[in-house]
Amino acid sequence: MKANQQRIENHIELLSQFTATPGEGVTRLTYSKEDLHARKYIKEKMNEYGLTVTEDGLGNIFGKLEGTLQDAPSVIVGSHFDSVPNGGAYDGTAGVVVGLEIAALFQEQNVQPAYPLEVIALIEEEGSRFAGGLMGSRGMMGLLSEEDFNKLADENGVLATAAMTEIGLDATKEKFRNPETIRAFLELHIEQGPILEEKDIQIGVVEAIVGLTQLEVTVQGQAGHAGTTPMNRRSDALVSAAQIIANLPTIAIEEGEGTVITTGRLNVFPNGANVIPDKVVFTLDIRSGKEEHVLNAVRNVEKLIESVNRDGISISAEQKLYIAPKELDHGIISLLKEASEKLNIPYCSMNSGAGHDAMVFSDFTACGMVFIPSKDGLSHCPEEWSDAGHLANGTDILFETIKRLTEAR
Amino acid sequence: MKANQQRIENHIELLSQFTATPGEGVTRLTYSKEDLHARKYIKEKMNEYGLTVTEDGLGNIFGKLEGTLQDAPSVIVGSHFDSVPNGGAYDGTAGVVVGLEIAALFQEQNVQPAYPLEVIALIEEEGSRFAGGLMGSRGMMGLLSEEDFNKLADENGVLATAAMTEIGLDATKEKFRNPETIRAFLELHIEQGPILEEKDIQIGVVEAIVGLTQLEVTVQGQAGHAGTTPMNRRSDALVSAAQIIANLPTIAIEEGEGTVITTGRLNVFPNGANVIPDKVVFTLDIRSGKEEHVLNAVRNVEKLIESVNRDGISISAEQKLYIAPKELDHGIISLLKEASEKLNIPYCSMNSGAGHDAMVFSDFTACGMVFIPSKDGLSHCPEEWSDAGHLANGTDILFETIKRLTEAR
Repeated sequence: MKANQQRIENHIELLSQFTATPGEGVTRLTYSKEDLHARKYIKEKMNEYGLTVTEDGLGNIFGKLEGTLQDAPSVIVGSHFDSVPNGGAYDGTAGVVVGLEIAALFQEQNVQPAYPLEVIALIEEEGSRFAGGLMGSRGMMGLLSEEDFNKLADENGVLATAAMTEIGLDATKEKFRNPETIRAFLELHIEQGPILEEKDIQIGVVEAIVGLTQLEVTVQGQAGHAGTTPMNRRSDALVSAAQIIANLPTIAIEEGEGTVITTGRLNVFPNGANVIPDKVVFTLDIRSGKEEHVLNAVRNVEKLIESVNRDGISISAEQKLYIAPKELDHGIISLLKEASEKLNIPYCSMNSGAGHDAMVFSDFTACGMVFIPSKDGLSHCPEEWSDAGHLANGTDILFETIKRLTEAR
Repeated sequence: MKANQQRIENHIELLSQFTATPGEGVTRLTYSKEDLHARKYIKEKMNEYGLTVTEDGLGNIFGKLEGTLQDAPSVIVGSHFDSVPNGGAYDGTAGVVVGLEIAALFQEQNVQPAYPLEVIALIEEEGSRFAGGLMGSRGMMGLLSEEDFNKLADENGVLATAAMTEIGLDATKEKFRNPETIRAFLELHIEQGPILEEKDIQIGVVEAIVGLTQLEVTVQGQAGHAGTTPMNRRSDALVSAAQIIANLPTIAIEEGEGTVITTGRLNVFPNGANVIPDKVVFTLDIRSGKEEHVLNAVRNVEKLIESVNRDGISISAEQKLYIAPKELDHGIISLLKEASEKLNIPYCSMNSGAGHDAMVFSDFTACGMVFIPSKDGLSHCPEEWSDAGHLANGTDILFETIKRLTEAR
């Protein structure tokens, strides 16, 4: 008996309705009302599939099926359930749904694990509300101090702790999860790129995840009236920001080797049609498969910033996130490939161009990831789509692998 | 008996408290709660000073003192009472307060005009909420059709008509004001530039107002994941917008003759840290004392936009506002100078680098403007400040002039 494609489709469909932008893709920011509704659904399903549900001090959701071994470490499967603004129904959510389906298969087939199985739904992987990204996994692994967490606020100045309270979460609960309690972490994710679709292969077994850094750049100038301030007396924060952003593609292309640089978020202050902007804050996302390219790109961006720093303008760049490229666990990679072969599902090896929570967990435990194709390679947009048949195949591969990792009978 | 400096200071102080950003300057957007509170205060004071208060279908406020002549046209004095985001307490408001003070002087000195006096408080001069700017005066002069007005919405999609209803205004009332009912329009405004302060002169009698155009530029690209979309497959709307904005100062400086170009407002969509932006909307404000420079600058901006229009990116620019440079009325200019001389207040002639409602009215009636110094030349920022003594002197000059224009006894 295999994964139930209809049940998977239902989960995806229902969860996609918890969006702040109906008709314009999924917008599910961490600790929002939409988070709360999705959270309730996930916890309900975890209960239904016989899991014991808990939430940690970050709002990560865990559904646990105890194993026969006493105090044994868990095999965790899942992904994140937040989204970018106006994103799709699959990024993150697909992996959570696959986790739920695996729990359903354990229950239906009455499979008894020796090591516990845990299904996980992580918060704020995208960093869309509190910047930084990968927050759920970083918090669990002790990489986000209580002090730093307590300072986190969204662009409206709402503290993460206040937003948690608002939806009934308890920020004072333990956030840290001892890595010794984790035997392995497995995640299915959509590819978010064009490779699998172009190759017409259903499954990508991920060998490594690209390195990634996120900077927040603040340009401070001087406000003034758009009509009465001569050009040579201006300290226009937006012109300086534009000079930086216009030159980012050149830096990325010259670095080569698939290096990408993106400014996705930019806010202008005070943002009035006839006021010279006195402040601009924007993000810089730099990624590459090799660490040296990430570091080179950061250096070249810093030089670029230096070159536009002039009278009346001051620019600062704060590194919000740095993660080196990560290789995933060779043992798990082998198990995933064996499962694919046994189930007769075509697969290939690949690297991940996107960052994932597995990047964080891989420093502490054995990690494995499976990709499925993204239609037209699109992601982070309402058009994001993946085939539920591919999701079911990915579930079957993970179910096989997890049965072995949990030493299930 | 002269203008009451303390009363002027009180009005400025009290009105500055109607702000959406306490402690961070005055943010009083048209039809907001802060508009409503300021509106109540202004109407209350108009009543107190013996004026008959009405509001038109735009929400402009009129306080009328009848004259002895039947059906005679009014001499109007005043300014606007909206602000830019995080602006100052004087831009616009100072002119409204001076209008109130002139009414108080008419009452206290029991001056009886032959032609009616009207104090006016105009909406949306800044265009901070509904773009376009000069909306109160344009609407009154029939330059904004009912159809266009009904389509106006702010950046959150709130219709102007809905926002009016929200604060108890009636958008179905007449907006048009027959210019034949206006004998003259007078306005005191802060200079918003450094000239008067540098020359140490208290009063600027405005001879002409610069030409001004405002464009709204929309750059449409394609969203995508910041990690998995190679640089050569991107249609990044923000990079294209940055290439335009980075080159605006060069166009303005090459045009010379005081030409200025400003992008004050810019919004990125969807504005997530790891999503390639698919849309950027920004304003372009172009001004010069001579019409040919405004038109040249617009042409060069269009060429610049054309040069960054490439595969996957489409850019459109919509002209929201165009006003040619305007000379003010020579008769009123002479009266203002005579009043300054009579009162022994030093003055100079000057042009206005900023647009004002007088630009709109000057096509329909005789207009005059008086500037007072701005501390450090700053405006459209919380530091904006002018001396109440200068405001009182400006009031005295306008009071003298208006007594003559209304043929008061």
